[in-house]
Amino acid sequence: KMLRRVLCTVLFIGALPSLAEVSQGHISVVLLGATGDLAKKYLWQGLFQLYMDQVSSGHSFTFHGAALTALEPGQRLMFDVLKKLACPPDESPNRCAVLKDQFLKLSQYHQLKTAENYTVLNREIETLLRQEGLKEAGRIFYFSVPPFAYTEIARHINSSCRPPPGAWLRVVLEKPFGHDLESAQQLAAELTSFFREEEMYRVDHYLGKQAVAHILPFRDQNRQFLDPIWNRHHVERVEIVLKETVDAKGRTSFYEQYGVIRDVLQNHLTEALMFLTMELPANVSRAKEVLQCKLQAFQSLRGLEKNSAVLGQYQAYASQVQEELQKAQDYISTTPTFAGVLIHSDSLRWEGVPFLLTSGKALDERVGYVRVLFKNRAYCTQSETLRDAVHSQCKAKQIIFYIGHGALNTPAVLVSRNLFRPVMPEGSWREAVGQSDLHIFGQPLSDYYVYSPVKERDAYSVLISNIYHGRKDFFITTENLLASWGFWTPLLDSISHQPLRLYPGGVENQHLLDFEMVSGEVAFTLAEPVELLNPNRLMPSDYRTIQSKFRQSPLVSAWSEDLISQLASDIEKTASRTVAHSGQFHLALSGGSSPVILFQRLARHHYAFPWKHTHIWLVDERCVPLTDTESNFFSLHNHLLQSVRVPYFNIHPMPVHLNQRLCVEEDRGTELYAKEIMALVANASFDLMLLGVGTDGHTASLFPRSENGLEGAQTVVLTESPVKPHQRMSLSLPLINNARQVFVLVLGKGKHDITTLLSRVGHEPRKWPVSGVSPSSGQLVWYVDYEALLG
Amino acid sequence: KMLRRVLCTVLFIGALPSLAEVSQGHISVVLLGATGDLAKKYLWQGLFQLYMDQVSSGHSFTFHGAALTALEPGQRLMFDVLKKLACPPDESPNRCAVLKDQFLKLSQYHQLKTAENYTVLNREIETLLRQEGLKEAGRIFYFSVPPFAYTEIARHINSSCRPPPGAWLRVVLEKPFGHDLESAQQLAAELTSFFREEEMYRVDHYLGKQAVAHILPFRDQNRQFLDPIWNRHHVERVEIVLKETVDAKGRTSFYEQYGVIRDVLQNHLTEALMFLTMELPANVSRAKEVLQCKLQAFQSLRGLEKNSAVLGQYQAYASQVQEELQKAQDYISTTPTFAGVLIHSDSLRWEGVPFLLTSGKALDERVGYVRVLFKNRAYCTQSETLRDAVHSQCKAKQIIFYIGHGALNTPAVLVSRNLFRPVMPEGSWREAVGQSDLHIFGQPLSDYYVYSPVKERDAYSVLISNIYHGRKDFFITTENLLASWGFWTPLLDSISHQPLRLYPGGVENQHLLDFEMVSGEVAFTLAEPVELLNPNRLMPSDYRTIQSKFRQSPLVSAWSEDLISQLASDIEKTASRTVAHSGQFHLALSGGSSPVILFQRLARHHYAFPWKHTHIWLVDERCVPLTDTESNFFSLHNHLLQSVRVPYFNIHPMPVHLNQRLCVEEDRGTELYAKEIMALVANASFDLMLLGVGTDGHTASLFPRSENGLEGAQTVVLTESPVKPHQRMSLSLPLINNARQVFVLVLGKGKHDITTLLSRVGHEPRKWPVSGVSPSSGQLVWYVDYEALLG
Repeated sequence: KMLRRVLCTVLFIGALPSLAEVSQGHISVVLLGATGDLAKKYLWQGLFQLYMDQVSSGHSFTFHGAALTALEPGQRLMFDVLKKLACPPDESPNRCAVLKDQFLKLSQYHQLKTAENYTVLNREIETLLRQEGLKEAGRIFYFSVPPFAYTEIARHINSSCRPPPGAWLRVVLEKPFGHDLESAQQLAAELTSFFREEEMYRVDHYLGKQAVAHILPFRDQNRQFLDPIWNRHHVERVEIVLKETVDAKGRTSFYEQYGVIRDVLQNHLTEALMFLTMELPANVSRAKEVLQCKLQAFQSLRGLEKNSAVLGQYQAYASQVQEELQKAQDYISTTPTFAGVLIHSDSLRWEGVPFLLTSGKALDERVGYVRVLFKNRAYCTQSETLRDAVHSQCKAKQIIFYIGHGALNTPAVLVSRNLFRPVMPEGSWREAVGQSDLHIFGQPLSDYYVYSPVKERDAYSVLISNIYHGRKDFFITTENLLASWGFWTPLLDSISHQPLRLYPGGVENQHLLDFEMVSGEVAFTLAEPVELLNPNRLMPSDYRTIQSKFRQSPLVSAWSEDLISQLASDIEKTASRTVAHSGQFHLALSGGSSPVILFQRLARHHYAFPWKHTHIWLVDERCVPLTDTESNFFSLHNHLLQSVRVPYFNIHPMPVHLNQRLCVEEDRGTELYAKEIMALVANASFDLMLLGVGTDGHTASLFPRSENGLEGAQTVVLTESPVKPHQRMSLSLPLINNARQVFVLVLGKGKHDITTLLSRVGHEPRKWPVSGVSPSSGQLVWYVDYEALLG
Repeated sequence: KMLRRVLCTVLFIGALPSLAEVSQGHISVVLLGATGDLAKKYLWQGLFQLYMDQVSSGHSFTFHGAALTALEPGQRLMFDVLKKLACPPDESPNRCAVLKDQFLKLSQYHQLKTAENYTVLNREIETLLRQEGLKEAGRIFYFSVPPFAYTEIARHINSSCRPPPGAWLRVVLEKPFGHDLESAQQLAAELTSFFREEEMYRVDHYLGKQAVAHILPFRDQNRQFLDPIWNRHHVERVEIVLKETVDAKGRTSFYEQYGVIRDVLQNHLTEALMFLTMELPANVSRAKEVLQCKLQAFQSLRGLEKNSAVLGQYQAYASQVQEELQKAQDYISTTPTFAGVLIHSDSLRWEGVPFLLTSGKALDERVGYVRVLFKNRAYCTQSETLRDAVHSQCKAKQIIFYIGHGALNTPAVLVSRNLFRPVMPEGSWREAVGQSDLHIFGQPLSDYYVYSPVKERDAYSVLISNIYHGRKDFFITTENLLASWGFWTPLLDSISHQPLRLYPGGVENQHLLDFEMVSGEVAFTLAEPVELLNPNRLMPSDYRTIQSKFRQSPLVSAWSEDLISQLASDIEKTASRTVAHSGQFHLALSGGSSPVILFQRLARHHYAFPWKHTHIWLVDERCVPLTDTESNFFSLHNHLLQSVRVPYFNIHPMPVHLNQRLCVEEDRGTELYAKEIMALVANASFDLMLLGVGTDGHTASLFPRSENGLEGAQTVVLTESPVKPHQRMSLSLPLINNARQVFVLVLGKGKHDITTLLSRVGHEPRKWPVSGVSPSSGQLVWYVDYEALLG
């Protein structure tokens, strides 16, 4: 009877639903955590907005608030919230008052604690529907509860509260969705045992922000303008920024566990990043197509490393944590409250474009934006002062999705007037006027086309409406979530003991948090003032590589990471010098696992390397097809060649696979390679050869007591390895010793014994082939890390 | 006795030269064209300045003005000039008056017309020296005469006026030094027959401009700051600009022959470009080292093409030419008075950095500068408005060599304060203060360290002083000159009939001369306003591709540019669909010139192309090494493969070069390729094959009446081309017809006849091999441009 009354009232105020509409069925909304902060602040208001918007949609509604609190106090708490629901400014006060009254009548409180409680709730819904003669359309369960409660609630819903066949179930989940990849996988697995993927709606409330939600539609509707410029050739950089003035006070019990990267970057800013970088699907409103493109975009992201981020912590945070979490005086929090992260995509579209994600608490202003800055390609012959400059091609060109707050204090889309006049959906966005004295991103507002929403809407209203409409593209799927955690977890691991820059907070931060990009990494621009106070603290740059002698040759030694970066620099120096002198550089590289880190370092940090003039040769190869993952060349290709621009003609894999067979003597692969070397490398003297050492003292693929390659005239030989795959091709020791420079790289504890042994023995290549490495007129340098050297 | 008097006077004013200094000998300066414009305006003043500066250097001087005019009127004309010589502001008026009096007494006029005149001049110098008992140090002959007079004067000087052994000869030459490479070579050869290289001082008065002359010393003295940033990783762009407000009125007889590129860019701006781009020699004041580095820098410049430049002509120029040169009413001048040129260096240091050279007459302001703009790598967390911003890393970073005029109205060196405080030579440059309200290059002057010369000096004074000191690095050597002409001449040739943009002149030019860089080319930003008057003219976006039938198969036709973009899109669509379906895409591409534009389009505009999953095969190949410029693969590599990321394993050049020989039957290249196809391409059915058509109806390398490949079981064949290189390798017609999709691209008027013929004939592959293209179960599409289709 309650519902009948509602329908009458609706008739009374004139929003008459047709019978066909009424027959669309009933929706039960269950809000778990109905008296919590989020519910109070946003969710009830969002549900009320949904009711106002959909009251004449043909669906009928009931709203069930639920919590652990007993019925009576819970009821009181909840209705205190409901009474305060606000009427939106664009709604007539009369209609709103009537609807609010109805909404309150359609809402009731439930204690949901035991399995029994859930069964009762289910029975009540069924009874109501039967009494009112309504068909059930679906049920929404909104989890506004701490994540540790998820599993139990999910189990109860699944076992007791599923709607009958033909009606849908939608469960809405709030972050955090785990703490790293592993915990996220675990949580996802648990949820998946209760719900089907299409039943889960994971909220990232950023996707409800109007400016963020409009990124994809904007790209879609402005394809004609963006297609030619939305790429690395035209985009200079992208900034995705969420700055807050508040700090974590009062929330440290949550914040101390998560920090800024988990709280903001892994979810909100990453979603914005995906909307910018993903390829556009043919239909941007099809959730599945969007998801596929998003997942592809995730795959193109280059892995983050320690130096991809700069991290900070506001000074008051430590004492807030000590106080709120009752920590000891000497407790040191390693939780960052500020992060600037440099992200690169290796997709063809975005390769080389820096994406800067920045967020922090206790900063100088509250603002959120996504800013795409284009390269300036123009030369303006006439000086700016002498002309109308608004459309000048020499002004900055940018597109900004302004999320909110800041100088504009409204969501907006800004496009530089010298770019194009954007196509915007007329019903929902309108051109904004006024405030011409305002400067934004270095330019007066009048330099932009500025659009803002016709109706500014709270993110949760938007999301609740999308849940109602089943628009899954506004939510985070399991795959999406895991892809994001997969991307962020390595960085989170590697920075867990990273020093944090302390900052005073607010405007006093001055230049302290400015950071700069250098060779794919970021670093704070200013040296840390604290360091001046503590001269004894060793900073990474204070570690010096040790220079000494090993087997009568120069030795470079350091911790492995520093050693690799030193080796990479030395190789680049040799390369540049050689190219400057003779126009080309012949580099022979070994296989194995040690060089992989070196290859990656060369690919990512040595942009001045003269690859165009470098010839790449193999020191040795396993007799497997080149596309086999065991192939040395395959590894070299994956970790180096596919990231740099060595001309095809300069790449010289060993011919181990001729005539569809592997290293057969009659195919004369060794002769072929020897001829190629003779034809291209002057005097068959390589400019630089990189070798490794095996635990048995082998180098290249020259093993102890090898019949071939340790001496004689042959320059390329077939050999036998004691481990699989047995067959190998290798450069010979005489050819190695003919090189102008030989670097031997030895890494890791596992090499300590052979390193120690080699430091004692003489020239005994038959026992330990590497002891025969001794360039006749070239230079030999050993790169041995501390673990190999010191054990 | 005259000289004695001078020495006495010098003693009197207290600048006592020691006897050792006096013994440095006598210098005779001969100014040819002593009463001409340049002499009046700059040269005599420069010589007077030299005298004032060097009067106590130990050298004694005489100054000989010469011209074709007879003695008496010439003398009068010359002394009228000399009487007007100004005293520099930093010179005491007394001393200057005395020195001017002496200078006049040391100067005399000579008529130099006949061989006899030169002999007389020589005798007079010898007599004077003998009378005064002076040793001869050297003779300077300054050619301030039109270039057509050079040869004769040079001959006379060489035969009659050479100083005795032990004394030097320096001849000073004024531009133009030729009109293009050929004429410059000719002129240089003539001069070389009279003078040794070290005797010639070719003036480029820009090298006497203080800001230009300081570029190399600045780079040298600031190596510590510049070494890490003076390269493509840090420099965003460089602008070298000389803008004039005056036009060519009164000088069209010269200007009409030369134009802005020959007048300003080939010499002045190119010299500045060289100072910026050359590698620094160890010693920047050694002329030979500087020259070597300069010549190397010239070699690294990428060749200019038609679209490397935008050209304009101010509107009044045409009538000025008609009037001054008495040209007919219908005479059309093709001389540019404005040019913007985009230059790239392919050196490792500068690859990819745009150097914009711009100059023009009748522009909005008079100014000259060299501006190096650095990339902005920083993110400034705190908003600019809330802090001290002068040193902000987010402000533009630039170094400007301000040549003169413009807003600053003085030579200057400006360095952004957020870059570094430059090292400047204390005696000659000082920090400038004041004018803080001035904005320059988008920033207040207070954002820069600003240095200006302690003593502002006219370029000719600087140069004359450098001639005296024998500083050859301030002058243009023959090699330097020819390198510059060698660089500019191809552009001059290719633009000789290029349309010029007309501009009104002065501030009214507005945006008319703004230009933009796109893919290594430049174009005016605004469409020519004339086009707006002619709405009937079809704009590119109005052309629609025509869809129809050709030889019973679908035909796509459009103007070539649109056709190529349609074809590229269609290939991408096919690729994406195929990869989505079967995980890989086998694409076989033809050689020839038509596909080059397609390759470039694919490389530059199709970022979503699934290259990682694409296999690239060749339809045909010329029997030349793969690195030969005639090789189809080489062209494919240059225009496509080096810009995209196809895995090494997926690239399949034809094996035309085995065992160090080309297409020898016994090497079984065709068999090898056939096997590779069988191993990788399912059913040997390529997903897409791109073919072309020759004027003889050939396709792939299947020529009319070919013995191989038109039928039979062989899939890869060796064929003979009627044109060089004769030997070819090609896929066979049966293999082509086994493809799932075949696109045939036909471009250009030259293909009209064969296109017409093909539209009429049936299946006659022996006569016209392309008529045999008819995929048995695949699809055939013709892409024929309007020129080929309609003639």
